[in-house]
Amino acid sequence: MQLALKLAKKGVGKVSPNPQVGCVIVRNNKIIATGYHKHFGGSHAEIDALNNCKNPEGATMYVNLEPCCHYNKKTPPCVPEIIKLGIKKVVVAMKDPNPLVSGKGIKQLRVNNVKVEIGILEEEAEKLNETYIKYITKKIPFVILKLAFSIDGKTKTFTGDSKWISSESSRKIVHKLRSITDAILVGSNTVLVDNPSLTSHGIGKNPRRVVLDANLETPFNSNVLNNEAKTIIATSKQSDRKKKEKLSNLGVKILELPDNNGFIDLKKLLVELGKLEISSLIVEGGETVARAFLKARLVDKINFFICPKIINNEKYVKDAIIVKNVSVKKIENDLLYEGYLK
Amino acid sequence: MQLALKLAKKGVGKVSPNPQVGCVIVRNNKIIATGYHKHFGGSHAEIDALNNCKNPEGATMYVNLEPCCHYNKKTPPCVPEIIKLGIKKVVVAMKDPNPLVSGKGIKQLRVNNVKVEIGILEEEAEKLNETYIKYITKKIPFVILKLAFSIDGKTKTFTGDSKWISSESSRKIVHKLRSITDAILVGSNTVLVDNPSLTSHGIGKNPRRVVLDANLETPFNSNVLNNEAKTIIATSKQSDRKKKEKLSNLGVKILELPDNNGFIDLKKLLVELGKLEISSLIVEGGETVARAFLKARLVDKINFFICPKIINNEKYVKDAIIVKNVSVKKIENDLLYEGYLK
Repeated sequence: MQLALKLAKKGVGKVSPNPQVGCVIVRNNKIIATGYHKHFGGSHAEIDALNNCKNPEGATMYVNLEPCCHYNKKTPPCVPEIIKLGIKKVVVAMKDPNPLVSGKGIKQLRVNNVKVEIGILEEEAEKLNETYIKYITKKIPFVILKLAFSIDGKTKTFTGDSKWISSESSRKIVHKLRSITDAILVGSNTVLVDNPSLTSHGIGKNPRRVVLDANLETPFNSNVLNNEAKTIIATSKQSDRKKKEKLSNLGVKILELPDNNGFIDLKKLLVELGKLEISSLIVEGGETVARAFLKARLVDKINFFICPKIINNEKYVKDAIIVKNVSVKKIENDLLYEGYLK
Repeated sequence: MQLALKLAKKGVGKVSPNPQVGCVIVRNNKIIATGYHKHFGGSHAEIDALNNCKNPEGATMYVNLEPCCHYNKKTPPCVPEIIKLGIKKVVVAMKDPNPLVSGKGIKQLRVNNVKVEIGILEEEAEKLNETYIKYITKKIPFVILKLAFSIDGKTKTFTGDSKWISSESSRKIVHKLRSITDAILVGSNTVLVDNPSLTSHGIGKNPRRVVLDANLETPFNSNVLNNEAKTIIATSKQSDRKKKEKLSNLGVKILELPDNNGFIDLKKLLVELGKLEISSLIVEGGETVARAFLKARLVDKINFFICPKIINNEKYVKDAIIVKNVSVKKIENDLLYEGYLK
């Protein structure tokens, strides 16, 4: 199952909104075939492994997600193939949370005399497909709030300076995260102040870009409107109709959403993004946007980069106090963060 | 030397403002005696070990700090004893930063045909006596800034609620830290709002309490004025003379210091505390005091408890978002803090 999970991980960023699945076929304690789900619309892991297998009859299949049995999708279901090719036993890490499958695949296998074992490395399997689990059950994206801040909790100085609080390595990790996530969201103020391009900077494919822009303030020459990735602007129904048309003509997708005193209804936004098959979303700020997502309890996971600087009340990040020789210890669920100044 | 350092640690909180020192005497790869500095004014580690030794002649001594050779102190110097009793070789982790000793002890040993090796586990030895090193060279206390805050950097909500951001285990660690530190400092506002007693809560001896109180606002019935520990109030020269007298009569030590717009000169305060043989000081807040110490670059070490809560703009700590399944990874010197909400 370790190997199945490892194979499954190879599909990261390529199979969305499908789950990442890996499959290993074993006979007499020997691996006779492996497979994984390689890209959205491609063969499922089970079929891939069976295709790589000379004679699967009587063998045991390890797969990190319950094999599918439904027809309402791009590829034919796996369960009938597994039965047809004579697999004797299927070891499954977790049930498929998809209501079209959940438990039915397992039941169909058992009815056809295939032994099924469930729950091996279940926790790891759930973590691997946390995005899929959220999306398939709630139809809205899994939301990761990413922020980088100083130890004293500041994403910028009081003058607005924010470059660079985090290290180059941290920023690379963010680019990598972008490359495996369906979309990335910022507020229009971040576009105005930082003019980011919100791409994965060549590390992999670019996420779709979502700008929260109730009053359509995004300038036409912003980097988020360049042709490196698709862009969605979420705006209020009341905002400038001509600007909307012009943006649409530039290829920008406009989502018109109800708003409340200039704040777009975030829950409804996520529903719309879900309809666009966005199963995972990174919220990158600014602070107002981050607070609004937290306030609405719409964040599933945080990715916080805590950087060894104390900004205190300095004007510029470069003047922050640097903390050296950092060591971190876990005390219950608190972190004891020790370091030296000067 | 590992053992010498371990023995030295036993003196923690008891020998200040002396250093923590441990000593091991070895002959033919066998430990023939050990010793350590047990309490301020007591025997030095070397003498303690020599006293525990039947016949030290020709043996090797391991000690984490250069043996002393000066007379201006409570006990006679160690070097003449080491020479007299025939120790052949002394292995020293670090030179004594005390200008009265530094290098002279080693020189005196060598002149008398005792071999000396220096620098074994030097870094560990320096960390162990970081407080002593600062105090003996600068004559002002080693300052530890201790704060507990939510992941979003808040020590309290906007309504002032701060109970409890950190876990019980973290608070116990703070009590332990207090028991081994000479003094603890807070601002008068913390006294007014939280009325803390600033003791080690029975874990060990209590530190002296220092209240930064330019305008003498500390109420006479505050817990910091109870008889559990000695209290020092640092105030401005201009503050109410009668109140000062009354506090003095209660046994409180009043330090009159120059101030600047209601902010006491912190550098001068540390000099005064140094004169009172306070070699280590925990600054516990509130935020204004913490910021002032940071601004003045008077903090040597931080002890920050980062707690798995996001306070955002909630009124009460109890309404903070709890972060679960926290995992922490080091990325260069940043921490990548991952966790789940809900």
